[in-house]
Amino acid sequence: MIDQDNRSVDGAEAIADFRRQIDGIDARLVHLLAERFRITREVGRFKALKQLPPRDPGREGALLDAVSAMAREQGLQPEIARAVMRLILDEVVRQHHALRTETEQRP
Amino acid sequence: MIDQDNRSVDGAEAIADFRRQIDGIDARLVHLLAERFRITREVGRFKALKQLPPRDPGREGALLDAVSAMAREQGLQPEIARAVMRLILDEVVRQHHALRTETEQRP
Repeated sequence: MIDQDNRSVDGAEAIADFRRQIDGIDARLVHLLAERFRITREVGRFKALKQLPPRDPGREGALLDAVSAMAREQGLQPEIARAVMRLILDEVVRQHHALRTETEQRP
Repeated sequence: MIDQDNRSVDGAEAIADFRRQIDGIDARLVHLLAERFRITREVGRFKALKQLPPRDPGREGALLDAVSAMAREQGLQPEIARAVMRLILDEVVRQHHALRTETEQRP
């Protein structure tokens, strides 16, 4: 009984400790994402103003390769880093197209 | 001609500067993802050992709500933070199931 209780308390504490670490990481992840999208919005406005194309497939490929390489070095499956980056890039391109349309429609 | 050249050089420099900032953020993002998956692998091993369920829908819902709220506070669309977190959580659950199966198959 005591043994079982102790074991269950240990388990709950261990999980709680892991979760605190994860929560700290998630806060930093969201902070970085917010920062990244602030910059890419600037890029989108700049590109719209200068009539540069909203999408740069060469740059996208380079970014996907870079995160894959960094992931591999750090023991993270490169597919995970690529999937996260692909999701981010798709959203960036969507926003850049929207900014382009907004700029063109301005009187 | 000079004006056009200057403008194009300015544009290239501005884009290059934005990209340097983005590259710095991406390196930090990959680092955090690697760290997060190191911890969740520990959690997965621990859960498999203690025969705890690989998935905790309550915790997943709480994490999605937390990143949405943090995103909103920081001017990031909550849908983006949720989509990134959903992708991460799906992969974590996949890994936890795999660790469970491995542990059970151990002689």
